Amino acid sequence: MQVQSYINGKWIEGSGKTTQLKHAVNGSIVAEVSSIENSFDQILKYGREVGGTKLRQFTIHQRANMLKELGKYLTERKKEFYKLSAWSGATKGDSWLDIDGGFGTLFTISSKARKELSNKSFHLDGGVEELSKLGTFKGRHLMLPLQGVALHINAFNFPNWGMLEKFSPSFIAGMPTIVKPATQTCYVAYGIVKEIIASGILPEGSLQLISGSAGNIFDYLTSQDVVTFTGSQSTGLKLRQHENVQRNSIRFNMEADSLNSSILGSDANPDSVEFTLFINEIIKEMISKAGQRCTAIRRAIVPSKFVNEVIKELKNRISKIIIGDPSEEGVMMGPLVSHEQVSEVGIRAKEIQKSCELVYTQNENVKFRGVGISAGSFFSPTLLYCKEPMTSEEVHNIEAFGPVTTVMSYKNIDELCLLVKKGNGSLVASCFTNDDSFARKVVMEIGSYHGRLMIVNRYCSNESTGHGSPMPQLVHGGPGRAGGGEELGGTRSILHYMQRVAIQGSPTTLMNISDEYVKGAQTEESIHPFKKYFEELKIGDSLLTERRTITEEDISNFADLSGDHFYAHMEDELSKQSIFERRVAHGYLVLSAAAGLFVWPDPGPVLANYGLESLRFIKPVFPNDSIQVKLTCKNKQVKEGDQNGVVHWDVVVKNQLEEDVALYTLLTLVKRKDF
Amino acid sequence: MQVQSYINGKWIEGSGKTTQLKHAVNGSIVAEVSSIENSFDQILKYGREVGGTKLRQFTIHQRANMLKELGKYLTERKKEFYKLSAWSGATKGDSWLDIDGGFGTLFTISSKARKELSNKSFHLDGGVEELSKLGTFKGRHLMLPLQGVALHINAFNFPNWGMLEKFSPSFIAGMPTIVKPATQTCYVAYGIVKEIIASGILPEGSLQLISGSAGNIFDYLTSQDVVTFTGSQSTGLKLRQHENVQRNSIRFNMEADSLNSSILGSDANPDSVEFTLFINEIIKEMISKAGQRCTAIRRAIVPSKFVNEVIKELKNRISKIIIGDPSEEGVMMGPLVSHEQVSEVGIRAKEIQKSCELVYTQNENVKFRGVGISAGSFFSPTLLYCKEPMTSEEVHNIEAFGPVTTVMSYKNIDELCLLVKKGNGSLVASCFTNDDSFARKVVMEIGSYHGRLMIVNRYCSNESTGHGSPMPQLVHGGPGRAGGGEELGGTRSILHYMQRVAIQGSPTTLMNISDEYVKGAQTEESIHPFKKYFEELKIGDSLLTERRTITEEDISNFADLSGDHFYAHMEDELSKQSIFERRVAHGYLVLSAAAGLFVWPDPGPVLANYGLESLRFIKPVFPNDSIQVKLTCKNKQVKEGDQNGVVHWDVVVKNQLEEDVALYTLLTLVKRKDF
Repeated sequence: MQVQSYINGKWIEGSGKTTQLKHAVNGSIVAEVSSIENSFDQILKYGREVGGTKLRQFTIHQRANMLKELGKYLTERKKEFYKLSAWSGATKGDSWLDIDGGFGTLFTISSKARKELSNKSFHLDGGVEELSKLGTFKGRHLMLPLQGVALHINAFNFPNWGMLEKFSPSFIAGMPTIVKPATQTCYVAYGIVKEIIASGILPEGSLQLISGSAGNIFDYLTSQDVVTFTGSQSTGLKLRQHENVQRNSIRFNMEADSLNSSILGSDANPDSVEFTLFINEIIKEMISKAGQRCTAIRRAIVPSKFVNEVIKELKNRISKIIIGDPSEEGVMMGPLVSHEQVSEVGIRAKEIQKSCELVYTQNENVKFRGVGISAGSFFSPTLLYCKEPMTSEEVHNIEAFGPVTTVMSYKNIDELCLLVKKGNGSLVASCFTNDDSFARKVVMEIGSYHGRLMIVNRYCSNESTGHGSPMPQLVHGGPGRAGGGEELGGTRSILHYMQRVAIQGSPTTLMNISDEYVKGAQTEESIHPFKKYFEELKIGDSLLTERRTITEEDISNFADLSGDHFYAHMEDELSKQSIFERRVAHGYLVLSAAAGLFVWPDPGPVLANYGLESLRFIKPVFPNDSIQVKLTCKNKQVKEGDQNGVVHWDVVVKNQLEEDVALYTLLTLVKRKDF
Repeated sequence: MQVQSYINGKWIEGSGKTTQLKHAVNGSIVAEVSSIENSFDQILKYGREVGGTKLRQFTIHQRANMLKELGKYLTERKKEFYKLSAWSGATKGDSWLDIDGGFGTLFTISSKARKELSNKSFHLDGGVEELSKLGTFKGRHLMLPLQGVALHINAFNFPNWGMLEKFSPSFIAGMPTIVKPATQTCYVAYGIVKEIIASGILPEGSLQLISGSAGNIFDYLTSQDVVTFTGSQSTGLKLRQHENVQRNSIRFNMEADSLNSSILGSDANPDSVEFTLFINEIIKEMISKAGQRCTAIRRAIVPSKFVNEVIKELKNRISKIIIGDPSEEGVMMGPLVSHEQVSEVGIRAKEIQKSCELVYTQNENVKFRGVGISAGSFFSPTLLYCKEPMTSEEVHNIEAFGPVTTVMSYKNIDELCLLVKKGNGSLVASCFTNDDSFARKVVMEIGSYHGRLMIVNRYCSNESTGHGSPMPQLVHGGPGRAGGGEELGGTRSILHYMQRVAIQGSPTTLMNISDEYVKGAQTEESIHPFKKYFEELKIGDSLLTERRTITEEDISNFADLSGDHFYAHMEDELSKQSIFERRVAHGYLVLSAAAGLFVWPDPGPVLANYGLESLRFIKPVFPNDSIQVKLTCKNKQVKEGDQNGVVHWDVVVKNQLEEDVALYTLLTLVKRKDF
């Protein structure tokens, strides 16, 4: 296979340095990639000018819908991708993580964006801020897409997942993306991007692919660009310290080395369910991708009282791991991606052994299963034991990016937390315990050193997504050694590609800019707004109702009808003991009477009361108080293709003294005219 | 005055390099500062171990309350601080910005934290994330205070405001702070920190002050520390590129140079209110702090049709600015902070003139008002005009940090936006226009290059807080040249000092860790939870009610009582036309009947229904459906000293088929036992 690049709207073969890529299982050459020699300045400009301009014409939901469509399109073609993935030595399970896991990210981020962000070209962040006494000058925050390019530099281990987990949010945010896959497995990214482009689903310019070297692209980055990097700390640091990145304060999200730990709780004795779950997880993480995961368990930290049992059990389990050609029946673990990695992991494992002992490795007597695999890049699972973890450095500092795990023990919870924190910031830690108070202490103490913590016990293990699996709903990244980055986390991931800008001005100006009613803005009364179709409704359309007096009889009737005979509402002495010191109307009577005042009874565009938000009863309504309601169209939300939209109404209920008695946002389902 | 440092719990005088600080108005020596020669490693450790450990024992609200108390304490003593501030050449107005503005930040951030964050040692970020089909494994995000030190490196221009706007959020987050003021005006920070320490309000170790040089402190920073920097880009870049900062991915928030622009709308002809407001703002920002504000207007961008009028009016107004000793009657503008600044600003202004012409400066014929001020560091307001702004570089790149503004013109909105964006990222831009559609276009196009945009028109100008004033409620910072940082923005500022960590586990584990009920967690039914006092209620306490059938008669009665005769609720043919295709109960009838099922009628600890959140009607309730409610204590909030707390209840209303018909969170006011 000749791996190409997709730039400036064309597929091209590079003419620069050529690299041959080998099949990890049998060493045969499967692909060749040549670096491109085009102007990288031009590629960035193409992204910004063609892709960025087009992308920003769509709304967040429209872009999210394209991703969903793309996810379906790719899923139908996934068989092809599994074949490519197998070249890297991946087992079927490994490929599932990369291929299906990547598509899952497309679907989840798309769905979250459509649920949690509005269908606009920008996102409103937080509420309106009061900046003045009379309310004529206010502020609020908008999130706007950056006008540059997102440059994603990916690692070799998850060529698809790593690409899509970063592409999904930058695309939905409205930024064009340039993907630079790791050369070792660039054929997977190439195969998938080829299908993506062929699908025609994405606007031209929104995705470019640079296979091979990215040359001097960093020289041309601007302050509106974003770089994400996944890989080794040394490369990441070099890039982050690039003069241009620093001088222009270019956002740089880095995910680098991580000495992730897994903890066995002091309650989890060898007979407990949690003990078995812990052993299973260590083995699973060792096997999965042959330990080539940034989230793999490098340090297994166990109570000193159980350390012998843990080691015994792990040795036993490791001895049964079948290594070889993943296409062979029964093979549990494939090779590393390349011979370079085998040598690299070997060197690192040796370094760790400066302060650890080798407990077990199959290396000496392993039988690889499969035919013609003597040239494959295999590495045997390796278990180390660190006797003095409080005074050893290597085990907390050196990452062997393969199936290598070190066991160490702790005497008490303080020592446990100190050990974990010696990792100097990790992507993830897991804790196997059925004692939530132990788990809570651990979380509070080690939490700030991590991006994710997983607590496993007998109640959740069946459905646990696993120590090693970042979830699109949850943040992925970690402080310190792990790079200080943050990815995923649902819609948080999208906001990383947007600029938060505070807007100050009059309420009317803020309403006109943000497409949302702001208290104090000019409103317009004309026909009853419930008579208007979704498209006809304007933000700021409002209705001031008649007045209604709430009588003693209303309150009594309401108590009987609802069954709510709370003493403060009752016509007897007890109500004087309430905080209101006299009889008051039920809050829900006020709410119901307010609806009675503003509802348009006849069939019309408003189909139903959908719910409400942020209801606060500000002041009590006493018998014979009279109430009046002002209803204002606050914002409108509609999903692409839906025949009804959701309209949010700002509702203010006042008493006869013009005091607010209840404030809330009402949600109604409103018909679209065109449907 | 001998300026001291407060480190390791003691006030000490430095023994290193000594600097003499001059009165900006008359050149007399007012203070002397000597750098300390203590171990900076020790100072950091003291902060982390003494301050950090103590601070993390308090809740967010407790820390916020200390700040409020501190704000009151300092306000009572502010006269002293005005005296110190005057040494720097500040007018009374300038000092007000710094002194009262700084205290205002203490109050606002404290109040926002108590309103918007929970009274816990951590903050819950976002909701529960569903990660499994059966719901036995879920996730959610916690924000935990970092376990390091916040090192704040401040600029000379706002020695108090700059210190407190950064100290407030780091303190509330639970991080100990080290303040390193700019040496030029360190006597102000010293005077104020002296009072802060003397107040005894803050836990020991939570605030240290390094006057003079901060030596090699960067060598000892760790990945849990945070650095904030305000000052020149060159110094900021040097610090951000420190090997230790990079290697440990230390959070570094930078606020550096900014070529802020102010725009006159194309609608704002010389007779308009907005034209006058624009001229006023330019002059105000020139005078304020003698232009030594990172937010000052450096570029005034005006329609080409009005450029002559703008220049004429500005010349006229500048000629009337009275410069001199701010203690003299009528003086409008003081000196720069030092002679070094005078020379620096002069050099920069000359550089800008490579592509601009000098329109006006008083320098030649200015009369300084005041006695004995010939040694003062005065600089005359200077107006420049750039004829070819689209092709000139200096005016968009060089910041003269004094009363220097350049006028330039635009032909159309596209050119306007290009000009603004040539600043390559700014803290703020303002736009004077009475045309909201013009404002909206400008916001959407230049927004991603800014941290703040102010739109001013006749309706908000009286209460406008001004182009140059960052507000504690709104973010402050900007991308690119402005440093890429973000400060303030209400409670967002606090989260910058916390680590977001995703927690995964069973619903019960998540509940036990987060102090909030999670659907699916083990709940406990005992006595009616409305009979329990605030302290007695446990998260997860729950009640499953009796069933109630909603009859046709109930619906009719409710329609009459509420006045809500919406056709879908009525007993006639019309209801068949509704989306429910038959008669349904009012949503508020369901809500009211649910309350009737769970309310405990007699006097008890529950005082009132306070409101509700996130109500959604999931399925319609038809006549003769029967409903049942499950009520579970979700979370508890109480303000320090209040006699009642707010309890949030998770409410699920189901029908006879066990389908959810309504979901919401109910808020009640519950008595505390001790009060």
